[in-house]
Amino acid sequence: MARTKPQSSTPSLFDEPEFDEPEPMSPSKRKKKSARAASKANGGQPGQRSDATKMAAKQREISVSEFFTKNRHLLGFDSPLKALLTTVKEAVDNCLDACEEAGILPEISVEITQTGEKVFRCAVEDNGPGILDTQIGKVFGKLLYGSKFHKLSQSRGQQGIGISAAGMYGQLTTGKPVRICSRTGKRKDAHEFLLSIDTTRNKPEIHESKIIDWDKDHGTRVEIEMEAKYQKGMRSVDMYLKQTAIANPHLCLHFTDPAGEKVTYERSTNDLPPETIEIQPHPHGVELGRLITMLKETSCRSLSGFLREEFSRVGPTVAKRIIDSAGKGLTPKSYPTRIAREEAASLHKAIDETKISSPSTDCIAPIGEDLMLSGLKKELEADFYVTATRPAAVYRGNPFQIEVGLAYGKPGGVGLEVTETGRIRKKDKARIATLDLVGAADEPIRVMRIANRVPLLYQSSACAITKAVIATNWRGYGLQQPRGGLPVGPMVVMVHIASVWVPFTSESKEAIASYDEILKELKLGLQECGRKLGTYIRKGKRLRREFDKRSYIEKYIPHIGIALQEILELSDKDRNETVETLEDVLHKSRNF
Amino acid sequence: MARTKPQSSTPSLFDEPEFDEPEPMSPSKRKKKSARAASKANGGQPGQRSDATKMAAKQREISVSEFFTKNRHLLGFDSPLKALLTTVKEAVDNCLDACEEAGILPEISVEITQTGEKVFRCAVEDNGPGILDTQIGKVFGKLLYGSKFHKLSQSRGQQGIGISAAGMYGQLTTGKPVRICSRTGKRKDAHEFLLSIDTTRNKPEIHESKIIDWDKDHGTRVEIEMEAKYQKGMRSVDMYLKQTAIANPHLCLHFTDPAGEKVTYERSTNDLPPETIEIQPHPHGVELGRLITMLKETSCRSLSGFLREEFSRVGPTVAKRIIDSAGKGLTPKSYPTRIAREEAASLHKAIDETKISSPSTDCIAPIGEDLMLSGLKKELEADFYVTATRPAAVYRGNPFQIEVGLAYGKPGGVGLEVTETGRIRKKDKARIATLDLVGAADEPIRVMRIANRVPLLYQSSACAITKAVIATNWRGYGLQQPRGGLPVGPMVVMVHIASVWVPFTSESKEAIASYDEILKELKLGLQECGRKLGTYIRKGKRLRREFDKRSYIEKYIPHIGIALQEILELSDKDRNETVETLEDVLHKSRNF
Repeated sequence: MARTKPQSSTPSLFDEPEFDEPEPMSPSKRKKKSARAASKANGGQPGQRSDATKMAAKQREISVSEFFTKNRHLLGFDSPLKALLTTVKEAVDNCLDACEEAGILPEISVEITQTGEKVFRCAVEDNGPGILDTQIGKVFGKLLYGSKFHKLSQSRGQQGIGISAAGMYGQLTTGKPVRICSRTGKRKDAHEFLLSIDTTRNKPEIHESKIIDWDKDHGTRVEIEMEAKYQKGMRSVDMYLKQTAIANPHLCLHFTDPAGEKVTYERSTNDLPPETIEIQPHPHGVELGRLITMLKETSCRSLSGFLREEFSRVGPTVAKRIIDSAGKGLTPKSYPTRIAREEAASLHKAIDETKISSPSTDCIAPIGEDLMLSGLKKELEADFYVTATRPAAVYRGNPFQIEVGLAYGKPGGVGLEVTETGRIRKKDKARIATLDLVGAADEPIRVMRIANRVPLLYQSSACAITKAVIATNWRGYGLQQPRGGLPVGPMVVMVHIASVWVPFTSESKEAIASYDEILKELKLGLQECGRKLGTYIRKGKRLRREFDKRSYIEKYIPHIGIALQEILELSDKDRNETVETLEDVLHKSRNF
Repeated sequence: MARTKPQSSTPSLFDEPEFDEPEPMSPSKRKKKSARAASKANGGQPGQRSDATKMAAKQREISVSEFFTKNRHLLGFDSPLKALLTTVKEAVDNCLDACEEAGILPEISVEITQTGEKVFRCAVEDNGPGILDTQIGKVFGKLLYGSKFHKLSQSRGQQGIGISAAGMYGQLTTGKPVRICSRTGKRKDAHEFLLSIDTTRNKPEIHESKIIDWDKDHGTRVEIEMEAKYQKGMRSVDMYLKQTAIANPHLCLHFTDPAGEKVTYERSTNDLPPETIEIQPHPHGVELGRLITMLKETSCRSLSGFLREEFSRVGPTVAKRIIDSAGKGLTPKSYPTRIAREEAASLHKAIDETKISSPSTDCIAPIGEDLMLSGLKKELEADFYVTATRPAAVYRGNPFQIEVGLAYGKPGGVGLEVTETGRIRKKDKARIATLDLVGAADEPIRVMRIANRVPLLYQSSACAITKAVIATNWRGYGLQQPRGGLPVGPMVVMVHIASVWVPFTSESKEAIASYDEILKELKLGLQECGRKLGTYIRKGKRLRREFDKRSYIEKYIPHIGIALQEILELSDKDRNETVETLEDVLHKSRNF
C-alpha cells in the first residue's frame, strides 16, 4: 500500500512547537518566548515539555489487579453497601457452580458478622467438591483466572474475577487477608490458607497455610473481612439470598445476619439441574479475525475436518456446501494453516450465507415451568401464579432461553376466592399480611431479574429485562400502566435468562445488554404469562361484581324470609329453612 | 483466630451427592440411581460429574486481551457504528495527550475511507512528538500498557487500553493488522510498522517494520481497518470532532469523511493549556490497604518523612499532628516498613480525623471561561452565551473542577435584537438557519458532556452531568421543564469536568459516576449560568412585549402624519419629517 501523505498544512503551525520554561510565566508570555525558541531551533526536534524518549521512560505495564483496584466500581465495589452484596454474590455463585459441576446437591451457609464500626466479616461455606490446595492461591488470589471463560456452557461465573476481587476489596479497606478452608474428600486433609493479592503483579501472596481438623467431608469455606454496610431492603443480601433460593430450587441455604438472626431456605426439589454440555462455537457467531486465528491454531489437517470439528452443527454436507460456495480454490482437503487472509474472508462470507441449523441447546439448563412455579409459591404469597419457559433461541451464535413467572396478589386489598361449595368469600387477613416481594396495589410492579440462576439487584433501568417489561402492553391484561413506565399493581414478574454467555453491560454483571433477539424472546415470554394474567384479572373483576350483587341480595333474603313467614304463616324453622334454601339457590346460580 | 465450625446440617443431605450416569435417563430415575450409588459409597468422596482434580485441570489464566475481545462492548465496540466513533476517539485522545505533554500545538487529521461493503479504514495523524520505534509494539499491541495510569495528573487517556483495543477490534472483524508510522524528530528516521495483537498472550505481533520517507518532521499516524458503519447525527464522528474542537480551542483539526468532504476546525488560540503537574495522593483519599502497601514499599526511613514525601499537603506540623493522634507507640521516627497492621489502622484513623488542606489544583487544567465562550461562539450559532468555571473541589482525594457553558438561541423562531440606534429588529433568517447543535424551541435542550476535554456521546442518561441538568430547576430561569426531564428550549448546555481521575462508569468512558461532591459542583455551575440565562430570557420577554407595542404604534404613525398634514396644512416634506421624528421619539423612549 502506498504511504499516504500527511495532510497539507500551514508550515508556521508545524514549526511552532511550545517550549516549557522552568520559571512560571503568564501563558501569553510563555507563548512568545516559545515561538522565539522554536524559530531559533529552526523547526528541528520537538524538545520542550517532554519528548518521545522521556515519555517512553514513563510507559509501563498495568497489572489487571491494579486496574480493577482503581476502577473497583466496575466490579460492583463502589459503595460499602454494594460491596457486601457483591461479595456474598460472588462467593455463593462459585459454591453453586462447583456443586453442580461435581453433581452434589448444594447446601450453603452465609454468615455476616460485624467486627468493627464499619467492618464486617462475610463467611460463605459449601458442601462442594473442594479445591486442590495447589489451586487455592490462584483461584482466590489472581484476577482473570478460572475454568469458565473459555467454555461454552451455562455457568454463573464467567470471568474468573469475582471472588478474587472481593478479597482484594477486603484487603484494600481493612488490610486483612482472606481466609480459605477447603477439603476435597473424606480421605483427604482439610487445608487452611491465609492469603492476599499482590496487586502490582496480580499474584497470590500466601501468608500461612496449614492442615486443620474439619468435621466436614468435603467443601470450601471463605472468609473476607471488609469495610461494609449491612441494611435490609430491596437490594440487600437478604433479598439476594431469597431470590437465589427461588431461582435454585435444589439449594438448601442458611443465612445468619449480623444481628444473629437465622433463616433457612429449604430445597423444594432433590433433583439437580440437568448437567449442561459444553458446545463448540456456532459458525454464524464467529468473526473473520477469530476464524483466521482458529485456522492458524487448529490441529485438523483438512479444511473440511476443521469445519466439522471446531464448530457445532457442521456435518460433511454443510462443510462441503460452505467450501464450494467460498470458491477461491478452496477444497475440502485444503490445509487449514495455509489458508491466507483473502481466502479466509471468502470462507467467512460463505459461512454467513450458508444455512446452518441452530445450535443445540443441551448447553443450557432452564429452571423449568414447574420448579419455577413451586419456587414462587413457596417464597411469595400471592393469589395467582403463572410461569412460562420459552423454547431456546440464539443471539450472535450463543444459545439462550427465556423463562417468565408472574405472582399476582392483593396485599391490603380485599382478596376474594370461590370456595369448594361455590361461595365467594374474602380471604384471610393474616395471609395477605405476609406478602413480601409483591408490592402494594398502587405501586409499580416488582421485577425479579435472574441470569443463569443468579438474581440481579442493581442497574435495573439499564437492563434488557426491565426494558422488555416496560415495552409490554399490560393495559391489555387488565393492569394500569403509565406511558414509558412499569405497570402498576400488586405483582412480581420474575424473568430468567439462561445462556452459555450472558451479555452483561459491565464486569459487575448487573444488567443485560439489549440484543434484539433477547428482547424479542423476553416480550414473547411476558406476553404468554400476561395473557393468562388477563384472564385471571377479568375473572376477578366478574367475581367482584358478582360478590357485590350477591351481598346486596343476601342482605334482603332474611327480610324476604320474614315476609314469607307472615304471608304463609310459617314456623320459625320453616322460615330459616327457606332462607337457607334461597341462599343456596343464589350461590349455585352461577358457575366460575 | 479460632476455626469456625461449619453450620450444623442434616447429615442425609450431606451424604447424598448426585452421580452422573453415562446413559440418558429421566431426572427422577437419575435421582433414585444416584441416591443408591451414594449410599453404596457410604458418604465417601464426591466422585460423580466432576471433582476437584478434574476441575483444577480446566482452570487457567485468562489474558486481558481475550477478556476484552469477548467483552468488547465494555470498551465501546458493541456496534459497527459505535466502533468507528470509539476508534477515532481513542486515536485523537492519544494525539492530543502526546502533543500537550510535549508542548506542541496540535494539528490532527482524521480520514475515514470506505474500503469494502461494511469495511472502513480510519486514519488519524498528528504532529506530536512521535513514539520510539522500540515502544510502538507495546503501545499499539498490548492492553493495559501506558504512562497515564499511575500518574495523578489530568490526561484524556487513563487506562492504556483504548488504541490497542481499537486495533484488536479491527483485527477481529477484518483480520488485518494495524499500520503505524511514527517519527520522533527531523534528524530521526520515520518508522512504519504493521502489527496485530496476540490475544492469547496480550503481546504485539509485528508483521513488518521498515524505515520510510515521510515529509513530516515529527508525528504519528495510525491506520485501522474495521467493520464499521458511518452515519451523521448527534452521536457521529462528525459531532465528536466538532465538540472536540470546542473543548480544545488550541487544536487545529482536519476531517475527511467517506464521501471525501473535508472540514477544518481552525484553532481559536495559540496558547496550549497550562502544563499540568503530577501530584502525590491526598491523605484523605487513601484506603487502609493502600496505606499498608505504601508503608511496606516506601524508601523513606521515618514515618514523618513518609507522610511528608508520599502524600500531598502534609508538612512537618500536620505529620506530627497525625502521628500524635494515632498513638499506639508511633513516633515521627518510627520505621515505616516495620509498622504492623493494627498500628497502620490507627494511623489511618488519625489521618481521617486530622484537618488537612485540600489538594493543590495545578494538576488540572480547565478550559477557562473566556476560551469556552469563544469556542461556543465560533462553533454554535445562538443569541446568548454564558460560561462559568467553578473553583476546584475534591472527591475521594482527587481534585476536580467543573465548567459550564450555555448557548441559547431561537432557531425557526423570531430572534429579536436591539440595534445600535436603539431599534428592535428581527434577525436575519440566514443566520438562524445555520443553527446546528442548538435544537428547536419545542425540543429538550441538548447537553454536551466533556470530560478532561473529551466529548462524551453515549450513555447520557447514566451520567452525573445529565442527572445534574435534570435536577436543576430551569423553570426559575424562564424555561419550561417537565418533571424529571430535561428542560425544553433552543439551548445547548456544555459541561466540562477536569480531574486527575475522572470516575467513569465503564471502561468505554461514556458516563461519569454520580459522586455527591461532583453532583454538588455541577449544580452550582449550572445555577450560576442559569441565573444569567434567566435575566436574558426575562429581558427577551420584555423586548417581545415592547416590540409588539411599538409595531402597533408604528402602524398608526403614518396615519397620524396624514391627519396632522390635513389639520396643520403641512407640506409632504414636513409631514415626512414629522413622521420620522415621531418614530425616533418612540424608539428612544425606552432604554434596554
